[in-house]
Amino acid sequence: MTLAFSADELISLLAPRATRGATAATIGQIAALKDARPGDLSFLGNPKYKPEVAATRASVVLLPADFAGEPAPDQLFLLVDNPSAALATLCARIEASLWPRPAPGIHPSAVVAPDAVIDPAATIGPLCVIESGAQIGPFSVLQAQVFIGRQARVGAGCWFMSGVHLATECVVGDRVRLHAGVVLGADGFGYESSTGRHVKIPQIGQVVIDDDVEIGANTTIDRARFSRTHIGAGTKIDNLVMIGHNVTVGRHCILCAQVGISGSSTLEDYVVLGGQAGVAGHLTIGKGAKTDGQTGINTDLAPGTFWKGSPCLPYQLEQRINVLRQRLPDLFRKVDTLAAELAELKKTLPTAGV
Amino acid sequence: MTLAFSADELISLLAPRATRGATAATIGQIAALKDARPGDLSFLGNPKYKPEVAATRASVVLLPADFAGEPAPDQLFLLVDNPSAALATLCARIEASLWPRPAPGIHPSAVVAPDAVIDPAATIGPLCVIESGAQIGPFSVLQAQVFIGRQARVGAGCWFMSGVHLATECVVGDRVRLHAGVVLGADGFGYESSTGRHVKIPQIGQVVIDDDVEIGANTTIDRARFSRTHIGAGTKIDNLVMIGHNVTVGRHCILCAQVGISGSSTLEDYVVLGGQAGVAGHLTIGKGAKTDGQTGINTDLAPGTFWKGSPCLPYQLEQRINVLRQRLPDLFRKVDTLAAELAELKKTLPTAGV
Amino acid sequence: MTLAFSADELISLLAPRATRGATAATIGQIAALKDARPGDLSFLGNPKYKPEVAATRASVVLLPADFAGEPAPDQLFLLVDNPSAALATLCARIEASLWPRPAPGIHPSAVVAPDAVIDPAATIGPLCVIESGAQIGPFSVLQAQVFIGRQARVGAGCWFMSGVHLATECVVGDRVRLHAGVVLGADGFGYESSTGRHVKIPQIGQVVIDDDVEIGANTTIDRARFSRTHIGAGTKIDNLVMIGHNVTVGRHCILCAQVGISGSSTLEDYVVLGGQAGVAGHLTIGKGAKTDGQTGINTDLAPGTFWKGSPCLPYQLEQRINVLRQRLPDLFRKVDTLAAELAELKKTLPTAGV
Repeated sequence: MTLAFSADELISLLAPRATRGATAATIGQIAALKDARPGDLSFLGNPKYKPEVAATRASVVLLPADFAGEPAPDQLFLLVDNPSAALATLCARIEASLWPRPAPGIHPSAVVAPDAVIDPAATIGPLCVIESGAQIGPFSVLQAQVFIGRQARVGAGCWFMSGVHLATECVVGDRVRLHAGVVLGADGFGYESSTGRHVKIPQIGQVVIDDDVEIGANTTIDRARFSRTHIGAGTKIDNLVMIGHNVTVGRHCILCAQVGISGSSTLEDYVVLGGQAGVAGHLTIGKGAKTDGQTGINTDLAPGTFWKGSPCLPYQLEQRINVLRQRLPDLFRKVDTLAAELAELKKTLPTAGV
Repeated sequence: MTLAFSADELISLLAPRATRGATAATIGQIAALKDARPGDLSFLGNPKYKPEVAATRASVVLLPADFAGEPAPDQLFLLVDNPSAALATLCARIEASLWPRPAPGIHPSAVVAPDAVIDPAATIGPLCVIESGAQIGPFSVLQAQVFIGRQARVGAGCWFMSGVHLATECVVGDRVRLHAGVVLGADGFGYESSTGRHVKIPQIGQVVIDDDVEIGANTTIDRARFSRTHIGAGTKIDNLVMIGHNVTVGRHCILCAQVGISGSSTLEDYVVLGGQAGVAGHLTIGKGAKTDGQTGINTDLAPGTFWKGSPCLPYQLEQRINVLRQRLPDLFRKVDTLAAELAELKKTLPTAGV
Repeated sequence: MTLAFSADELISLLAPRATRGATAATIGQIAALKDARPGDLSFLGNPKYKPEVAATRASVVLLPADFAGEPAPDQLFLLVDNPSAALATLCARIEASLWPRPAPGIHPSAVVAPDAVIDPAATIGPLCVIESGAQIGPFSVLQAQVFIGRQARVGAGCWFMSGVHLATECVVGDRVRLHAGVVLGADGFGYESSTGRHVKIPQIGQVVIDDDVEIGANTTIDRARFSRTHIGAGTKIDNLVMIGHNVTVGRHCILCAQVGISGSSTLEDYVVLGGQAGVAGHLTIGKGAKTDGQTGINTDLAPGTFWKGSPCLPYQLEQRINVLRQRLPDLFRKVDTLAAELAELKKTLPTAGV
């Protein structure tokens, strides 16, 4: 980061209860106590790291008001009610400087159809393409090289990073954050096989993204065969996720990186899928169900349950089986031994067979 | 969708054998019987859903000619020979309106090398880049922000959606549909390790895509070390698939989302790989072989076989083992019991050991 | 390839010890002995393929100096000290023609902030966007449609292919090769859940890529929560890989396609992860540790170890268990038989139970 906070600026921003020591350093980074170097700010967010304060090389350290130690030379302690909250205040300030809201308006290099409806408070960055009939709401920002297809609609207060693609007729709500390379509205993957060829089934539906969704870099969500592929409000999706046509994702779900959801499946609210998990088609994942990473989901999951493995089993069962699985070599040996002993026993008991 | 069909327009388009009832609604969506709302069109494509017709709220319903029920108020039944075929007719009409063929020509914002050969019937959309010596065939459409590298060749009747990248020297046949963010012709992943460093092996081959291939959003296909990475005619590839260098994919294969194929493997015709399946390098997957999702293929697969699991086993065997796997806790207990019983038996038979 | 080498040009370039035969063909491709067609060049790099030389249809064949056979009509043998080295010489020559260094300068269609610092020896291709304060070093090439965010820094001698996205404040060293669609610096995936909503944790750190790294198409590396997500020098990353926030990847690692690494994990130097492997968060993978494809890593791995399976086990153990796993149906049967035999034995030994 090229940020630069002086000690005085930090004191002014964070309004500590007290300070201890002093530093002439300009703060350009935030780092964990043990990783920090001169010029960094660090913090004691979790009491278990208290022993690391004494050795930290950070120039500024956020500490709870009752912290007892003394700073090193050229080190400033800021004693605050809640170091985590103070850090959050600082981070929000830095975030605002990282992503300053650009001035509204349309960059002269953007290619915007005459009948597109761009709110005067929206920002259309350089080399964006906005096709006929598309709408962009107030305070939305298209960073650069974004594509908005025909009749697509973007709500208010959205941020689309560079290289986002929103295809024809798709709809995005308010305060949606799309990272670079996201593709919304590519055709669903549907064919009918006829005389040895795969004949395309028209994919004429939409993608609809509700408010307050965030979608990670290079994630793809396909348009519906008809009707809509739908992502509910507040859901957060990581990078390189694939969501197939006609999928419904509920509100406030968490989909970790590289998850894949096959066509026509439904995730109810508050579902959490670990990284690289896969969901087969036409399933229902109940409210609040969770899975571990790499889980293979080939059955409906009841609400509130936790799953693991491929194909998935209830988490505790899968864990137990994974432990037993490691003992398979022993088990095979043990059974062989038992068989031998039993055979031996039968031999030494001639009457047994009579 | 912003589409709007009146009842009369639908009757005119679909030419039903008979109609029953009437609606004043304008049809803007297609939906399944149970999901449909007023203003939607629905259909009875599969007899098993017949009980859902009575309760559907769709304004227009496509039904087989011999259907017996009566419509609700403000509901129109269209009785046709084949509801699925009628639906397909309607969908094709809608699809044509979603993706109207743009006028041919080169958008003034595109950057086209003077020696690129663009057919006069091709459409080069806004902010495309076409490098030296590249060729674009008749009736091909590059939607927007597409990149075509030096000496690359694109056939006739292709659609490349926004943000497609076709690298230097790669070749695409006729009627190929590439979705947003597809990358064809990045370098294959090849290094020789020497004195602790990975030295790049030049990747000087091509990617060659034959006719009638469709490739999903953000899929990547790497150029060959030399010669070609080759995708056969009629093959359909979903989103976020990775195909390594020197891979050969046959004709009419289906590769579901997030599949990965390592370098130099060969898929014969009509291979079907489920989502997130992975193929190791230098393997041959026989004609018509299939795998389930998340399958790990580390061996050649015989033609016509069906596989599951990682590492993969024949589908039926893998299914059976997955059932037994869940009974492992029981098996371990049972073996312990047997061992105890046998030990007990030996104890109570002092002569046995003599 | 549109390359064309005459026999004389090849002789001039490769300086063979001797030649045998002759060809009038113009060489446009390189191919394996068994795949080669007239007009191709082939080579005997591995003695085990020696029997294929007699049948090859290649017009030119690179052979070891002591090779005994005779060429076919219109076929030229080039006898060299080391056919693989001669091939490498040829490939390097072809590579240079595939990726000729473009003239330095800024394409007039690029949108470059007035305060960006572009070295006069750098090449900024068409339709690139370079935001305020960004720096591009000498001899670096941005092919086309590349995005460089505010204050981002790119070193010397880099190649960024079309459609690369480097976000605000991220840093790339020297001789880094990024393939099309790479996204560096999207927000890390971090939220705090509060009253049923996921509240975004600001992601204000960087991505830092050291020298001589290569990153494959559509791979994404997220910026740190604070401090940095870091890729060490000489590491090679394949396509569609996902690296989460605050990950540290050491020097000279190899990450195959579709690998996913969760937040805050550390890979030491020379780690090798097979395709589609997944690493959970906050783990340490020791120096030189390796995994097979699709491995699920949910524990720290000791240096120099080799792993397989999900969840992973030491490679040899996992292999053994996979063999035994296939014998589970037999094991269940055997245990049932033992139980029956034991029960029978007890029955025939009435005294045993006394």
